[in-house]
Amino acid sequence: MRYSTGTIPATLCGPGAIDRLGPEAAALSPAGSVLLVADPWLQAQGRLAPLEQALAGAGLRVTAFTGLSGEPKSTQVAAAAAAGRAAGADLVVGIGGGSALDTAKLATACIPGAPDPMAYALAAAPMPPGLLPSLLVPTTAGTGAESCATCIFSGPDGRKLWAWDPGLKPRLVLLDPALTVSLPRDLTAFCALDAFVHAFEAATNARTHPGAALHAHHALGLICAALPRVAEAPGDLAAREALLLGAFHAGVAIDMCGTAIAHALSHGAAALAPVQHGLATALGFGVSLGWLAARPTPQVEAAARACGCAGAAALPGFWEALVARSGATLALPAAFRGVSAEALTRAVEGPECAPMLTAHAETPDRETLLGFAAAMLATAA
Amino acid sequence: MRYSTGTIPATLCGPGAIDRLGPEAAALSPAGSVLLVADPWLQAQGRLAPLEQALAGAGLRVTAFTGLSGEPKSTQVAAAAAAGRAAGADLVVGIGGGSALDTAKLATACIPGAPDPMAYALAAAPMPPGLLPSLLVPTTAGTGAESCATCIFSGPDGRKLWAWDPGLKPRLVLLDPALTVSLPRDLTAFCALDAFVHAFEAATNARTHPGAALHAHHALGLICAALPRVAEAPGDLAAREALLLGAFHAGVAIDMCGTAIAHALSHGAAALAPVQHGLATALGFGVSLGWLAARPTPQVEAAARACGCAGAAALPGFWEALVARSGATLALPAAFRGVSAEALTRAVEGPECAPMLTAHAETPDRETLLGFAAAMLATAA
Repeated sequence: MRYSTGTIPATLCGPGAIDRLGPEAAALSPAGSVLLVADPWLQAQGRLAPLEQALAGAGLRVTAFTGLSGEPKSTQVAAAAAAGRAAGADLVVGIGGGSALDTAKLATACIPGAPDPMAYALAAAPMPPGLLPSLLVPTTAGTGAESCATCIFSGPDGRKLWAWDPGLKPRLVLLDPALTVSLPRDLTAFCALDAFVHAFEAATNARTHPGAALHAHHALGLICAALPRVAEAPGDLAAREALLLGAFHAGVAIDMCGTAIAHALSHGAAALAPVQHGLATALGFGVSLGWLAARPTPQVEAAARACGCAGAAALPGFWEALVARSGATLALPAAFRGVSAEALTRAVEGPECAPMLTAHAETPDRETLLGFAAAMLATAA
Repeated sequence: MRYSTGTIPATLCGPGAIDRLGPEAAALSPAGSVLLVADPWLQAQGRLAPLEQALAGAGLRVTAFTGLSGEPKSTQVAAAAAAGRAAGADLVVGIGGGSALDTAKLATACIPGAPDPMAYALAAAPMPPGLLPSLLVPTTAGTGAESCATCIFSGPDGRKLWAWDPGLKPRLVLLDPALTVSLPRDLTAFCALDAFVHAFEAATNARTHPGAALHAHHALGLICAALPRVAEAPGDLAAREALLLGAFHAGVAIDMCGTAIAHALSHGAAALAPVQHGLATALGFGVSLGWLAARPTPQVEAAARACGCAGAAALPGFWEALVARSGATLALPAAFRGVSAEALTRAVEGPECAPMLTAHAETPDRETLLGFAAAMLATAA
C-alpha cells in the first residue's frame, strides 16, 4: 500500500499558550506588519483588544479585520486580504472558529496573489508563489481548520466552495484551552461531535491509511474521554485541552483522507436550510452508524476499539451514550419540518456530496439513503 | 503543562514510493535544477544512475554529489553546497543514511547562505533567509535525520557539532522499504535499535510531553514488532516499512524532546574510539536500563506498555530478548579493550554529553556511571 501524509503544523499547546502570541508572531513577521483576522464576537466580548496589544507589544503593526458573519464569503476574504495588502502585512494571524481561520488561511494567498479568492475556488488557478505564513488560534474545538490545507468559503451566488493547497497550512498553531471555556455547552458538544466524526470517517473510509489512522485514533480516544468531562465541568481545562487536541488531530486525519457518509448527509441538509455544521454532521453520523457498524471492515473495528468499544457492534450504543453525556440535544431546526426525505436524499446525491457518499467500501443504495434522510428529518423540532 | 510540537514533514510511504522521485522533485524545483546528495555506496552499487535518470526524466538538471565518508564533515558540506550553488540548484535531494541526509539538509542553508557550514555550528549565526527546500530518501531505518531539524557534522578539528533550525526539515520524505533491503543484518539491527532508543528516551526523559509521546509510542510498537521479522526474513517489505516508519516517528519524537542517558554513554564512547552509533547507543541503553526501570515514572511505565510489556519491571528482560531476536551481537570493537571505566565516565561527564546525562528525573551518580561504563567496556571483543 502506498500512501501520503501531509505536513503537520507545529503547535504550542496548553493553558497560557496564548501568552506567546506576540513573540511567536514577531518571529514570523520580518516586516513587522500583521493582518489579524478575528471572530467579531471576540471584539464584542472585549477580548480582541488584549490580543492586539500583545501583538503591538511585540513590535508589530496590527491591522485587524473582524468583518465576518457565519461561514466565510468570498467578498469577506477579499476585504480581509485588501486590508492586509494595504498594510504591507507579511503574516496573517487568525483567531476564532473555523470561519475566521479559513478566512485567514485564504488571505495568505490573496494578499500576494489574486485579490479575489474566487480565482482559487475549486482549484481554478494554482496558488501564487510566496504564500504568506499564518499563525492560527482556534477558539472552538471542532473544525480542525487549523491543521488542514482546505479552506471552505462561499461564492457570490452562495454556493459552498473550497480552496486547497498544502501551503495554506499555518506555520504555527496555538492550542490554548482557556480560549474555549466560554463556548456554550451545546456548541461545545456540536463542535466536539463534529471532530469525532472527522476522526471516525478519516479512519474508516476507503481512502484511509495507517498514517491517517494514527491521528484519527488518537483523536477518538481524546474526544471520547474529554467530552463528557467538559459537559459536566465546562471549566475543566485539561478536558478542554484534550478536545482541542482531538479536533487538531482529527483535522490532520481528514487532511489526509477526507470524510464520508455523515458529511454527505450534513452537507446535503445544509443545502436545504440553515443548520449548525457540527449538529448536522452528528445527526448524519447517528442515522448512518447502524448501517456502517453492520459492515465492519477491519478499519471500522479498529476505530471502534479507539473509542473504547469491544468492537463495531457496540458502536451505535456507544454513540448514543456519548451524545447523551455531551449534554446536547441533536435535532434539526424547525425549518426542516417541511422537508421531505426525497428532497434531502436528492441533495445528498448531488455532485458536491458524491465523493463523500461513495467514500466507504460499500455505497448505500437509494432506499438506505431515504431511510437515513427520514431519520434525520424526524428530529426536526 | 505547556509544550511545543514541531512541524512534521509530509511523507510518501510504501513500496514503490521511490518511483515518484522525479515528479515530486520537479514539483519542488521551479528552476529545474537539483543538487543530489547521495551515499557513495549507492554509486558503487550502480543504484545512483537510475535515480539521476528519474530526476532528469522529470525535466530536472541534476548535479550529483557523493563525496561523503563516515559522518559528515564541514568541508564535505561546503563542497556539496558549492556544487549546488554553481548549478543554480533550488532543491536539494538527499538519498542515503543519516550522513547523506544531514549533508543535504545543511546544504539547503549553505547554498543561499554562508558557504561554510561552520557559520551555523552550535547556532553561531542564524540561518539565512530563503533556505532551499529538500526532499529526503532514507536508505536506512535508524537516525530519523529525515524528520528532525538537527544536522550533525564535524568541524575541521574533528569535533562533533550540530546545526539546528526548523527550516532544515525536508519538504517531503519518501519512505520506500525496498531501498533498505540490501542493508546487512547487523547494520539493520543497530539502526533499528538506535531508533528504538530514540523513541524510548524521547518518551521518558524529563522534557517529554504528550505530543512527543504519541509518536514515540507509535515508533516503539512498530519497531518491537518489525525488528524480529526483518531479522528472520530480510526481504519482508512490510516489516522493513514498519522499521522505516518507526525510525521516522522516533525522529519526530527526539526532534521535540531530545534524548537521554543511553545517548550520553554512546557519545562518550564515540569520543574515545570509532564505534557504529547505533551499536554504541544500544549498548548504552542496555547497561542503563535496569537503573531506569528501577525508577519507574509514569512515562517509563507508558513506554514499557508501548513495547508490549506489562510494566517497567519487565523492560530489561524484554530488551534482552529483542536484541537476541534482532540477530545482532552487541559488543564494542577491540579498540575499546584498553579503555578504563574511569576514562569513559569522564567522557560521559563532559559538557557535550551533560544535557543527555541530566535528562531524566533523577541523574545517575558517579558510582552508577562507573558501573554503566564498566558494563559497556566488558563487551569489548
